[in-house]
Amino acid sequence: MRRLRILFACTLLVGLGLVSTVAAAQDSLLSWNDGQARRAIVAFVEKVTKEGSPDFVPVPERIATFDNDGTLWAEQPMYFQFLFALDRVKVLAPQHPEWKTKEPFASLLKGNLKGALAGGERAMGAIVMATHAGMTTAEFETLVRDWIASAKHPKTGRLYTEMVYQPMLELLAYLRANGFKTFIVSGGGIEFMRPWTEKVYGIPPEQVIGSSIKTKFDLRDGKPVITRLPGIDFIDDKAGKPVAINRFIGRRPILAFGNSDGDLQMLQWTAAGGGARLMGLVHHTDAAREWAYDRTSAIGRLDKALDEAQAKGWTVVDMKSDWKRIFAFEK
Amino acid sequence: MRRLRILFACTLLVGLGLVSTVAAAQDSLLSWNDGQARRAIVAFVEKVTKEGSPDFVPVPERIATFDNDGTLWAEQPMYFQFLFALDRVKVLAPQHPEWKTKEPFASLLKGNLKGALAGGERAMGAIVMATHAGMTTAEFETLVRDWIASAKHPKTGRLYTEMVYQPMLELLAYLRANGFKTFIVSGGGIEFMRPWTEKVYGIPPEQVIGSSIKTKFDLRDGKPVITRLPGIDFIDDKAGKPVAINRFIGRRPILAFGNSDGDLQMLQWTAAGGGARLMGLVHHTDAAREWAYDRTSAIGRLDKALDEAQAKGWTVVDMKSDWKRIFAFEK
Repeated sequence: MRRLRILFACTLLVGLGLVSTVAAAQDSLLSWNDGQARRAIVAFVEKVTKEGSPDFVPVPERIATFDNDGTLWAEQPMYFQFLFALDRVKVLAPQHPEWKTKEPFASLLKGNLKGALAGGERAMGAIVMATHAGMTTAEFETLVRDWIASAKHPKTGRLYTEMVYQPMLELLAYLRANGFKTFIVSGGGIEFMRPWTEKVYGIPPEQVIGSSIKTKFDLRDGKPVITRLPGIDFIDDKAGKPVAINRFIGRRPILAFGNSDGDLQMLQWTAAGGGARLMGLVHHTDAAREWAYDRTSAIGRLDKALDEAQAKGWTVVDMKSDWKRIFAFEK
Repeated sequence: MRRLRILFACTLLVGLGLVSTVAAAQDSLLSWNDGQARRAIVAFVEKVTKEGSPDFVPVPERIATFDNDGTLWAEQPMYFQFLFALDRVKVLAPQHPEWKTKEPFASLLKGNLKGALAGGERAMGAIVMATHAGMTTAEFETLVRDWIASAKHPKTGRLYTEMVYQPMLELLAYLRANGFKTFIVSGGGIEFMRPWTEKVYGIPPEQVIGSSIKTKFDLRDGKPVITRLPGIDFIDDKAGKPVAINRFIGRRPILAFGNSDGDLQMLQWTAAGGGARLMGLVHHTDAAREWAYDRTSAIGRLDKALDEAQAKGWTVVDMKSDWKRIFAFEK
């Protein structure tokens, strides 16, 4: 009875808008230094959640989108999904004797990554298709789950899921506690991310958007399967990001975070909506604790987007000065 | 202080799983007769939400998918989106003098629908592209909003948003109150549905999946726009439905409802998961209050899916006997 009364009171208060789920920044953003970036985030969240404020945004419209590689987890020395693909090539090699003499596999299997990638996009495509297609979605999910639970980062020796940025985990949680719905909008593979994003980021599969290969529904011995085909369906990068946001979410974000030129159009699309907005870039400036790279990096190049952020007053997070801690495993 | 204490108690109880949002069927499914369909739905919801039960499903996995045309709202005398397209043809005709002699438009403008559709899929495609492409997504949204707020159904004279099935609205609300996340998975256009589904069904844009045409991101005078192009991107029907569920949701539904052979693969995909499942079909059996059609209808044909439902014991809703009321506007 007491429990019921409390439930009723709670429902009533929430219904009346007298309480809402609120998280104070001082309890949430613990790994952030009190700098310009943190202040911009807190000021933004406080104004869009304050009822009666001219900047108030109703809960269903509090959409926040985040790039993944380089924004929520690291992306050096190369995109982690590509490291997954390389591991798959090694596992699959015994079934493909022809790879011994066929590029890019021949170079790869000799440990010559540079030689393998000399073939450019075509070589990359061949590696991805050989490792990401030709199985059911359920089989692929198992491959990803097994790899992510055991593979180690070549530099830190940590699980890849430990290579996530602690301040960004706090930001995701802080936003959700303030009524935001958090989405990933990544150039990475949608089915490569979904098996672990809920546990690691608190983002369920239906809020993960990414690149995809073609798939096909079939009855196999009367049992329905979805098969992954060797063809690109969609590349969720650059101008593809706002297209995907429109297709998957159907609502414009009011906050978006990226770290590279691949995120520029997502940030432009976010900025072009009415009302209060926050556009953020994670700037990799800490060679000691993480990596330092921007305008000339082959991976995660940040050049045009950095110019535009500076010109338009977007929020640029300086990892070195804005983050007390980058990874949870740091002392 | 008292308010804070109640909030805290509430959070604690929910956190401990001691209370969860529960809605009793007797308060929710008011337009359903106490027949086999209602009983199957209630039994299913009660067992998957009962903690400790072998059929218990955690909240994040309570995914329910619904077809739209003929399942949540009516689809006779033809799909409502096609009636929208016909209205657009009339509006646009003065800008297209060539339509006077060009099929399918010439027949359409003379009121000869049968003649216009004699060209089959190609004619349909021409009508859809002429009316659904060539504008920005924001412009298209405005067209849909204006039409849906004013256009009237040719038989009932009601707004199309009044042509929704009251028992299905109750079912959606009952499921959500029991922790389900409700999705639309429709052959209809994704951007035709999103402007009104939240208000009418309580389903936000990011939980609406449908057919789509190609879109493109551009900067127009420095302002980002997404333009609708005259090409099909994806048809969310038949085998496309499980493919779209996998792509957009990334999780298999535990409950799915449709009304036609276009929903068969979605129901098969749902049925093939492990644990408790509910597969439902709305069977149009009430010529007096709605329409009666199934195996030979050009619109919403229900033939193979009805056979499979009967063979496998899926839940078939007989509109005439299972529903006390079909539309809210009925006396």
